Amino acid sequence: MAGSSFGTQFKITTFGESHGDKIGVIIDGCPSGLNFDMDFIQKYVNRRKPKGKSSTTRVENDTVFVSSGVFNNITIGTPIFMYVENNNTKSNDYKNIKDTFRPGHADFTFEEKYGLRDFRGGGRSSGRETVARVMAGAVASLILKELNIDITTFTASIGNINLRKGNYHKEEIFENELYFPSNEDANRALKLIDEIRKKGDSLGGTIWCDVDGLPAGLGEPVFNKLDAVLSHAIMSIGAVKGVEIGDGFTSTTNLGSYNNDDFINKNGQITTETNHSGGILGGMSNGNQLKIRVAIKPTPSINLPQNTVDKNGNPISLEIKGRHDICIVPRAVVVVESMVAVSLVDMLFQNMSAKLTNIKKVYS
Amino acid sequence: MAGSSFGTQFKITTFGESHGDKIGVIIDGCPSGLNFDMDFIQKYVNRRKPKGKSSTTRVENDTVFVSSGVFNNITIGTPIFMYVENNNTKSNDYKNIKDTFRPGHADFTFEEKYGLRDFRGGGRSSGRETVARVMAGAVASLILKELNIDITTFTASIGNINLRKGNYHKEEIFENELYFPSNEDANRALKLIDEIRKKGDSLGGTIWCDVDGLPAGLGEPVFNKLDAVLSHAIMSIGAVKGVEIGDGFTSTTNLGSYNNDDFINKNGQITTETNHSGGILGGMSNGNQLKIRVAIKPTPSINLPQNTVDKNGNPISLEIKGRHDICIVPRAVVVVESMVAVSLVDMLFQNMSAKLTNIKKVYS
Amino acid sequence: MAGSSFGTQFKITTFGESHGDKIGVIIDGCPSGLNFDMDFIQKYVNRRKPKGKSSTTRVENDTVFVSSGVFNNITIGTPIFMYVENNNTKSNDYKNIKDTFRPGHADFTFEEKYGLRDFRGGGRSSGRETVARVMAGAVASLILKELNIDITTFTASIGNINLRKGNYHKEEIFENELYFPSNEDANRALKLIDEIRKKGDSLGGTIWCDVDGLPAGLGEPVFNKLDAVLSHAIMSIGAVKGVEIGDGFTSTTNLGSYNNDDFINKNGQITTETNHSGGILGGMSNGNQLKIRVAIKPTPSINLPQNTVDKNGNPISLEIKGRHDICIVPRAVVVVESMVAVSLVDMLFQNMSAKLTNIKKVYS
Amino acid sequence: MAGSSFGTQFKITTFGESHGDKIGVIIDGCPSGLNFDMDFIQKYVNRRKPKGKSSTTRVENDTVFVSSGVFNNITIGTPIFMYVENNNTKSNDYKNIKDTFRPGHADFTFEEKYGLRDFRGGGRSSGRETVARVMAGAVASLILKELNIDITTFTASIGNINLRKGNYHKEEIFENELYFPSNEDANRALKLIDEIRKKGDSLGGTIWCDVDGLPAGLGEPVFNKLDAVLSHAIMSIGAVKGVEIGDGFTSTTNLGSYNNDDFINKNGQITTETNHSGGILGGMSNGNQLKIRVAIKPTPSINLPQNTVDKNGNPISLEIKGRHDICIVPRAVVVVESMVAVSLVDMLFQNMSAKLTNIKKVYS
Repeated sequence: MAGSSFGTQFKITTFGESHGDKIGVIIDGCPSGLNFDMDFIQKYVNRRKPKGKSSTTRVENDTVFVSSGVFNNITIGTPIFMYVENNNTKSNDYKNIKDTFRPGHADFTFEEKYGLRDFRGGGRSSGRETVARVMAGAVASLILKELNIDITTFTASIGNINLRKGNYHKEEIFENELYFPSNEDANRALKLIDEIRKKGDSLGGTIWCDVDGLPAGLGEPVFNKLDAVLSHAIMSIGAVKGVEIGDGFTSTTNLGSYNNDDFINKNGQITTETNHSGGILGGMSNGNQLKIRVAIKPTPSINLPQNTVDKNGNPISLEIKGRHDICIVPRAVVVVESMVAVSLVDMLFQNMSAKLTNIKKVYS
Repeated sequence: MAGSSFGTQFKITTFGESHGDKIGVIIDGCPSGLNFDMDFIQKYVNRRKPKGKSSTTRVENDTVFVSSGVFNNITIGTPIFMYVENNNTKSNDYKNIKDTFRPGHADFTFEEKYGLRDFRGGGRSSGRETVARVMAGAVASLILKELNIDITTFTASIGNINLRKGNYHKEEIFENELYFPSNEDANRALKLIDEIRKKGDSLGGTIWCDVDGLPAGLGEPVFNKLDAVLSHAIMSIGAVKGVEIGDGFTSTTNLGSYNNDDFINKNGQITTETNHSGGILGGMSNGNQLKIRVAIKPTPSINLPQNTVDKNGNPISLEIKGRHDICIVPRAVVVVESMVAVSLVDMLFQNMSAKLTNIKKVYS
Repeated sequence: MAGSSFGTQFKITTFGESHGDKIGVIIDGCPSGLNFDMDFIQKYVNRRKPKGKSSTTRVENDTVFVSSGVFNNITIGTPIFMYVENNNTKSNDYKNIKDTFRPGHADFTFEEKYGLRDFRGGGRSSGRETVARVMAGAVASLILKELNIDITTFTASIGNINLRKGNYHKEEIFENELYFPSNEDANRALKLIDEIRKKGDSLGGTIWCDVDGLPAGLGEPVFNKLDAVLSHAIMSIGAVKGVEIGDGFTSTTNLGSYNNDDFINKNGQITTETNHSGGILGGMSNGNQLKIRVAIKPTPSINLPQNTVDKNGNPISLEIKGRHDICIVPRAVVVVESMVAVSLVDMLFQNMSAKLTNIKKVYS
Repeated sequence: MAGSSFGTQFKITTFGESHGDKIGVIIDGCPSGLNFDMDFIQKYVNRRKPKGKSSTTRVENDTVFVSSGVFNNITIGTPIFMYVENNNTKSNDYKNIKDTFRPGHADFTFEEKYGLRDFRGGGRSSGRETVARVMAGAVASLILKELNIDITTFTASIGNINLRKGNYHKEEIFENELYFPSNEDANRALKLIDEIRKKGDSLGGTIWCDVDGLPAGLGEPVFNKLDAVLSHAIMSIGAVKGVEIGDGFTSTTNLGSYNNDDFINKNGQITTETNHSGGILGGMSNGNQLKIRVAIKPTPSINLPQNTVDKNGNPISLEIKGRHDICIVPRAVVVVESMVAVSLVDMLFQNMSAKLTNIKKVYS
């Protein structure tokens, strides 16, 4: 199956290389009657823009254009085509990697798969590709808002600087350029970033994503469990190397009696007392908060000489030109959120025919 | 999309509840001309059987039946239907949970999604469902063998007992009932299991999966990256709470200069010197060993009283009857391997049309 | 994409060869809460049985078994596995075609595609395969009944014996063995069949299918138009060589002023005065009767010597043994109806998320 | 499943309304290494342009733009985004149908499905949408050419003017504006068109499509038979009301002994003597010519007053403004050919893993 589509009832299909003239997405299956809030969408996309010292100096204005699927600011049910333009490309920076494989990048694997590649800026494997995901994520978020489903995504660590226990302040996420829910921890991380930048090296980190307001029962047993689909969606982001739901790997060292979340009756609503499961049981949402943790590897582009080989296998000492991020984590926050939003909307739509009673609600 | 199918060019579709009369799988897209080695398949399926003190006392003989797709012991390209029978069911054990939600289980979420459920043995959410995956995994493994692709899957930890550095002995994996690559570490884990069993509690652990011999270039950018598809496949297994590729979460605290794997020329073959990436770059295999790590939560069924509620939200102290595993990890090893095998075969088939030269190889 | 599945939100996957021990279907995406009326299902499947002189003498009892997805006679949302057994097989009849290609059959094309085949009774290409479709069709029909959607399918011609103008009597469809809506025309056709049977030859015919009660707006523009999906579904039946919607090929010789159906207000309901379009405009149902016409070719198995070749290309005069139908049309009526029913259910489910207002009806 | 995608291994996804600023397609799964002949593509797309008196006076220049997936005139395996611009729109022409349902058009069904619509020029249901299909068809054709597969598509009738027996001259197809394989018959049809145009009415017709050079064995039994997929593809074109393969409906009145195509050995190649089947047996290509016939209804837009209703069900006498075709058949020829080309490429790619020997050809 060609790999540039995701979803079935709410399906996104993207295109675009780093140095092509456009990057865009077709969103198919967006319901009609949605207020298409361009202001919200543009602000959402702007969250992905480089900010401050952790980021690349390539800044695109990323103005979102919409070509179809919207009429008089309301969605009409037909495919929505959205795109941004690539203006700030410096393709000449990449000439020296035309025949060379950058460590940690997809140059080699693209060459192996396709026999050739667009080497300029990483081509299709560039992080630039994710802007198409974020446009789709913005539209998915508009739908989730209509259903009172709320996603909170933030940086939880950069390198070895972690969000400290007790430091979680949701309102601070948008107050610092790293999207930490703690301005204090953000400042500690900024210092680290500055230090590593001077060394010419790069950093990774972790992103957490919490979802509130999900109805229980989302997710399709057996293979399209909610956690399975979310992992698929998130792991498809270039820099991601790990995904956890709830306590994740930590749960493997706990006992069942601790890890099980007791069901309780809270004001007439059945929920769980603890939330080690991260809101998913048997692959379906249980109505408690959905908790996802994501590992982002350090940016492969660094300002240090590296050993590699060229196409013919000759050893080469490579110094990478081009502009890049010292730490991609802050910019990846909204990318993770976008993939979660898109997945949730798709699962919500798929779930609609689970019960005969639901079907009768629509057709009567 | 109905959730009991996985794959596109090599597609599996399963059915079956814990206490129904059959559990089975239709494998669609298996190529013709494959020697259908029933002896290999039955042995593969037997790896999932309960063994020793960590496991349930419900033992099914799991004889594999094949109804179609095979003629004179050779696959003929048509769908292969395989099934086992459920003989050793004790449905009466489950009557007391008919209206009660077991902590850590999918009783509540199934009820929320569908408005009713088959409560006997967990119904469709039972680990029993995975036997269908393993039958499919056996057939996928036959295909991988033809292409000289080799999967090694093993238990890497149970509770806080980890495989010790330097203790990896591949040949010992099948010498102990826990599928540890170290009989010594297996013995330490068995002691822990015995202790926890006496307490009526349960354990989780981690499973590692290494794949050798993969061609470079497998995986479909952007959304069907190899790691994305593998994460989907593995997270769809009931007890899994986390997936890592390569260094996973550990990579988030390393620097780019360390995490990048330098390309080298090894006897005329381009490969990487280190393998922090776990054999995947930009979502495609790079020809080095594929490395996957999987978190398995402690079994939710325990022999201790637990607080929960019934359908009406009334608090209840629950003691679970029925038979269950103290630690599911050893039995899950072949389930993880099966999902990896199925995914790889699907990706191999999807990848065949990536290059015009490949297409001409087939049609000429 | 492996070809033995159909549908996305209501998905059926089949397996089985003519002379294997079972033929069956997994229905995935059937909503929970449906009364699983086994009496209705068995009677529905029985409509496909050979009847009278037009049919084969191979009579299977086709008792339907159900293994999963149903609990206490109610569907529970999990995959439904249904199958019948093949008991009345005479594989020896087919030994002489092991290396020979029967004209009009799929022997040659299976051999070309897969390099080998199960020659017994046509293997997977046998009409016997359709029993799996009919089991799925029965379940789909139960869903349509809940939504007051009614399908009427009947034989409209056999050879050159057509349903005469003014002879349509819906209540007679089940009164004659040919499923003609006219006992009189059925008798004329039976005479022709008898005559052709004596000559050792075979007949084709046409099947019409009318659907009443469909809501307007079903069908997904652009590529999954309702007529496109229905054509796919119907053309996938072995003997079908043509599909028309509404006036079909006849419309090509009419003028636009005649072919356009004027919209009218009928008791407060907008509908069309005529129905040349067959109830579909722009690929979506318009609320009027859906009208489909299907061409069935004459059965390729005949009791006359035929010229053909063997695997090595040597000319052979072939006399076919085995049992077969002189005219498959009457038995194909319920197969066509099944594929229509399955398609409609799938489209109904897909359509549920078309409007934001529908989504809010389900999630609130 | 959202309906604006078609195909799995070679997948196209389109967007665009009649009066939006762009109409385009993402082609995902195009193999790398294909010479992207823009001259061929533009000429292919131009075949869809209005020509002569049968066509609308809305003429777009339809310059094809390419944004991704091509580097140095060679495809690189990543999604190809192609689009044209809508320049010649006169939206004011459509104001009077804002609240009115045109007979034969999709105004009513779009309104029913989505609750609102873009009424300008028919929005998404306009024939303008097909330009996206033709861009994809051009790329598919480039691939087919590499495999020496040849498609010939032509007008076989307009109204009651049929291609006369013996008049088929392939080389004349591109010599007349109607794409008849007979300039003589084209002239007869042009006279009819002229006459009908003066009356303000419209015409339909039939299109035939022949494919030579297909390998045997294409098509996936059971549900994705080659004829089933082709019918889906072709029926998804707005004006199509019927599809036949080979003798189609005519075969229903022939006897089996006539309809069966005897296999013969022709210069060492097994083929069939006659071709009533249209090159498909059991849903797979048999190596003989593929023969498809397509019914196109008369254009619903006519220059005559028509009776219809408005949104509130009030009767209205409608006179349609806007520009339209008297007969869409000539322009639809390349649309049919495009859908056939896209389907064939997808089936060719899907078929690659049918045999283990093919898989080994690619991975060795």
